[in-house]
Amino acid sequence: MTYELYYWPTIQGRGEFIRLALEEAGAAYVDVGRQKNGADKVAAALAAQATPSFAPPFLTAGALTIGQTANILLYLGARHGLAPRAEAGRLWVHQLQLTITDLVNEAHDTHHPVGVSLYYEDQKKEAKRRAADFIGNRIPKFLSYFEGVLQQPKRRGGFLVGSRLSYADLSMFQVMEGLRYAFPKAMKRLEPAYPGLVALHDHVAQRPNIAAYLASKRRIAFNEDGIFRHYPELDR
Amino acid sequence: MTYELYYWPTIQGRGEFIRLALEEAGAAYVDVGRQKNGADKVAAALAAQATPSFAPPFLTAGALTIGQTANILLYLGARHGLAPRAEAGRLWVHQLQLTITDLVNEAHDTHHPVGVSLYYEDQKKEAKRRAADFIGNRIPKFLSYFEGVLQQPKRRGGFLVGSRLSYADLSMFQVMEGLRYAFPKAMKRLEPAYPGLVALHDHVAQRPNIAAYLASKRRIAFNEDGIFRHYPELDR
Repeated sequence: MTYELYYWPTIQGRGEFIRLALEEAGAAYVDVGRQKNGADKVAAALAAQATPSFAPPFLTAGALTIGQTANILLYLGARHGLAPRAEAGRLWVHQLQLTITDLVNEAHDTHHPVGVSLYYEDQKKEAKRRAADFIGNRIPKFLSYFEGVLQQPKRRGGFLVGSRLSYADLSMFQVMEGLRYAFPKAMKRLEPAYPGLVALHDHVAQRPNIAAYLASKRRIAFNEDGIFRHYPELDR
Repeated sequence: MTYELYYWPTIQGRGEFIRLALEEAGAAYVDVGRQKNGADKVAAALAAQATPSFAPPFLTAGALTIGQTANILLYLGARHGLAPRAEAGRLWVHQLQLTITDLVNEAHDTHHPVGVSLYYEDQKKEAKRRAADFIGNRIPKFLSYFEGVLQQPKRRGGFLVGSRLSYADLSMFQVMEGLRYAFPKAMKRLEPAYPGLVALHDHVAQRPNIAAYLASKRRIAFNEDGIFRHYPELDR
């Protein structure tokens, strides 16, 4: 079976968390949005699902269509060894993923604090206030939390859960990448407090399948249409 | 086994989605935050978990501690018949719940557009802009989506998934309650377009366990410390 991923063709966005899981798993998939007329295909599929998604990304797996990033990862994690088999472990990885989702939403809102329906240019002043709060309070609170998970007394191997890589580790890599892209000055200052997260990021980047993906054309570059955007005026 | 719910004692907040599921299921639970010195107990438990939560609510089920609202509902849904047994149905209910989560986050951000670390009074101007976008664009987009799910050709029984109540239906009831409380003028104008959601709300309110809960002291009243807040200046 070949998965079909439906997401916008020009951004990493929320689709990137799915791409990383599919790539690490070595799963066969088509990134439909990046085919010819891909954006049209995504929009058409979005309008014609039996279990409709509010927005991309969504994934088809045979007859199944699954929406919501964390939900897709819940599914892929169970099928590709990217989550523990036991229920307690599965729930714990999913809990971490949903907390990463919260962090990603807040990162998005730094450039869209007043509304997703408006352009960044129409909310720059508010974005400055929100980004200052995000850098000053929220990034440290979230990264301290995840660093604390990594540094728990009985943890081994440097992964968030158990002694094996999970989809939450892949997503954490992407969050570190994104925060570094969006807020390079702030992250340079903040990162030394989170050695476990930096090491996890580096480990994920060097895994063979991920390294090959990152070096390929399949990896879209960060840009100012995605979730993590570099606006120098928001960094400090 | 008696569940222990850990959440703040004075608000419905995100804990309410869990309370509604526990009440509908007739499950034995202690709402720890509402006991004597409850807020202290919640804070102490938050600091001492093997699988730490970023924030309440979290639920203990025997030796298991589960955080993140949608994740707790995923767990309770499987145990108390509040989700389909088959994987496709379980994922579909969870997808809807995660979309409800997105809507709830956006409702929260109408009064905290600039940052959760700041008071509402320090972001009133920005809140007015965000609330206008929420009422004008986002509420209609979300409610149209859920109404569309209810009105799919083969749907029966008025529930979001299958022919039985799921935890997503309970959460949808709470969203309608919250939106009506926060934006009574806007909702009075918008609601006629969503007859399926109004009927679902009314059905849930009349279920025996839910009706008993809503009439009890266990149901905390909406107020201006929760997610859904009524600030007349944000309604229109």
